[in-house]
Amino acid sequence: MTTVRVGLLGCGNVGGALVELLEGHGKAIEARTGLRLELASVAVSDKAKPRPAGLDPALVTFDPQSLVDDPSIDVIVELIGGVDPARQLVMGALANGKSVVTANKELVANFGLELHAAAAGSGAELLYEASVGGGIPLVRPLRESLAGERITRVMGIVNGTTNYMLTRMTEDGASYDEALAEAQALGYAERDPTADVDAFDAASKGAILATIAFGQAVVASDVHREGIRHITADDIARAGRLGFVVKLLVVAERDLEDRISVRAHPALVPSTHPLASVRESFNAVFIEGDAVGELMLYGRGAGGRPTASAVLGDLVDAAHGRAGGNARAPMAPPPPARLIPIGDLLSAYYFNIDVKDRPGVLAQVAGVFGEHRVSIRSMEQHGIGDEAQLYFHTHDVLETDMRTTLERLGELPAVDRVGTLLRVVGDADL
Amino acid sequence: MTTVRVGLLGCGNVGGALVELLEGHGKAIEARTGLRLELASVAVSDKAKPRPAGLDPALVTFDPQSLVDDPSIDVIVELIGGVDPARQLVMGALANGKSVVTANKELVANFGLELHAAAAGSGAELLYEASVGGGIPLVRPLRESLAGERITRVMGIVNGTTNYMLTRMTEDGASYDEALAEAQALGYAERDPTADVDAFDAASKGAILATIAFGQAVVASDVHREGIRHITADDIARAGRLGFVVKLLVVAERDLEDRISVRAHPALVPSTHPLASVRESFNAVFIEGDAVGELMLYGRGAGGRPTASAVLGDLVDAAHGRAGGNARAPMAPPPPARLIPIGDLLSAYYFNIDVKDRPGVLAQVAGVFGEHRVSIRSMEQHGIGDEAQLYFHTHDVLETDMRTTLERLGELPAVDRVGTLLRVVGDADL
Repeated sequence: MTTVRVGLLGCGNVGGALVELLEGHGKAIEARTGLRLELASVAVSDKAKPRPAGLDPALVTFDPQSLVDDPSIDVIVELIGGVDPARQLVMGALANGKSVVTANKELVANFGLELHAAAAGSGAELLYEASVGGGIPLVRPLRESLAGERITRVMGIVNGTTNYMLTRMTEDGASYDEALAEAQALGYAERDPTADVDAFDAASKGAILATIAFGQAVVASDVHREGIRHITADDIARAGRLGFVVKLLVVAERDLEDRISVRAHPALVPSTHPLASVRESFNAVFIEGDAVGELMLYGRGAGGRPTASAVLGDLVDAAHGRAGGNARAPMAPPPPARLIPIGDLLSAYYFNIDVKDRPGVLAQVAGVFGEHRVSIRSMEQHGIGDEAQLYFHTHDVLETDMRTTLERLGELPAVDRVGTLLRVVGDADL
Repeated sequence: MTTVRVGLLGCGNVGGALVELLEGHGKAIEARTGLRLELASVAVSDKAKPRPAGLDPALVTFDPQSLVDDPSIDVIVELIGGVDPARQLVMGALANGKSVVTANKELVANFGLELHAAAAGSGAELLYEASVGGGIPLVRPLRESLAGERITRVMGIVNGTTNYMLTRMTEDGASYDEALAEAQALGYAERDPTADVDAFDAASKGAILATIAFGQAVVASDVHREGIRHITADDIARAGRLGFVVKLLVVAERDLEDRISVRAHPALVPSTHPLASVRESFNAVFIEGDAVGELMLYGRGAGGRPTASAVLGDLVDAAHGRAGGNARAPMAPPPPARLIPIGDLLSAYYFNIDVKDRPGVLAQVAGVFGEHRVSIRSMEQHGIGDEAQLYFHTHDVLETDMRTTLERLGELPAVDRVGTLLRVVGDADL
């Protein structure tokens, strides 16, 4: 039996669940792996907060640096979140040769290179399965199971809050505001929902997924980002009649020259696509590779216990490394990403415009399309009398051409309004 | 750069795809991992078969034992399939200290303990991600990502052939025979489809999944097995009207006393369940754990290239181990499984009977139910005139009580026929 001493930074929702899992499953882990995971110290910031019942009060400290400096601690688990002071603490732990397990997407998405370099420098391990997709195994399958695979595309529903909101808007016809209020009442959304609804959270996770999938260093600010504030129940209902559902996706793609594109935006997904059936607050990541074809990994993307489960899996792995000497050769640091400018992206689009219903309007609109190389796959007209709504679904179009087209359409006297522009993804028939 | 020499046993569908992947992705793997995977020798049995274009004919041999005995070979990849001679060759390689990667479900499901013991004895690694679910990462996530998780249930669609057949019967109303003929024409089903339709293949994969998920040694013959030969398009259509789809599942469960049950059988799955949307020849495994909640891993469960992708992931892992000294502590050998007798299982059921439509028949039928503790959740009657069909959906019932009930019902003079009995799974509302 080898004992591995664990220092825990942060004991909130995830940390508390981890303490309970160590208490409840520690014996089973010992029997299976021969490793005893001993909780050596727990650093917290809020003295008033209740702690898990099984946590010995003598282990609690308010000085996180003391764990980083304690030579008897083998592995640090960082569950503080955010960049400061997590970054300094994790860098310190890695420099001291301690392996680090973290669930901190912001830290990994913005400072992953620096953390990996520190780990490689001291021979420590850096593991962050829980930083994307909560309890869903993603980082390890991408890095290890698919080590020999040329991954071409990763599409993920990685934000449970917005997926919950879009599910309510789809299934109950709720408005954006109603869906947000419901998500807030359930504790899924913060009072300030910016990180979720403006896709900052999804963009961070997209950066992590793309870095691992393509072996190119992507940071959060490299990710093109559009949120869901402008999506209406009407957009969703109309998409539904065409056989699509609306999802907030991160999409990471690589072209034949190994240039990559990473973006987070709402998109129309065919209702027969496996991602379409990911409802409520569930997460899923759909992976396409040259040899493996299509994979999807699905589960609880957030929550204390699912996230703690992923942390514990990493912790067992890190403990194996400490116990046996770490055999896993550090990955070569990924080169900076070769990003495709967003304007150069090809995508199919769905959008609508309000027009005055008079002769010649469609010809004017079609003229703008032709001028900017926008090829229409299908069109639908609604409304009678003076006003009509035109719905368009395009073939693959250059982003820059699509944007120019919408601007030009907006300038036509016969066009009263240009509605929501949505990308269409995952449609093999295009 | 570390060179790891690989000996390949078998160069059919999967082996050929592996040779192509090594050729095509070898440079990318080198850049990423610092490991050069060098194909040292390829043993084949059929001299006449065409080989992949990139394979140097000088590497081909007809003597598999020569690879096992070659001290310059570090890792053996076994893609022969079946028990003999694969078992002797793999045991020999492990005894010689070579790590082994295999896609052989039959071998692992029946001789896994012996193989693991041989690997532990010589410090070699034994990896078999490709033995279940083709290209889907399953073994590694279950063993590593969920190392700290108490897994309570695993339900899998792990046979692509029967899932394809059931999809045709569900979506096109095809008969069993038509669906089988179609699967055979597409090369999904063998001329003798026994291994697929009688669930031998699913049972082997269930044994492997259960062993890893529960840490108890399960062999293929421990798995209760029922096939799909008796399923009719009518059964499927009626299930559909009740909101269910019919799937061939492996179900592995553990009770609160850590007794386990592993079985392969057709089952009714609610159409809202993630497994219900797994169509065509795709595979998926749905995992439930105490902390992680629900997970599903989905993808191509067969085919040369997806399976070769999983083999290559294992091969990179094994090569890491050879290059750096294997740090991963061998798992403790699992104890023999504590199996729940099949008669003691609780399950909800769906079945139908043909009865003479005369007064008092329902009372007789209900009497048999009451006598054997079968509680009915819903009933539907069809048909007028002399004959009627009664459809029953039960609450959870002991398997042994259900079987006795059906026997007694068959003995009633008013009952003309007892129809297909199907378990209902994944229904949280029961």
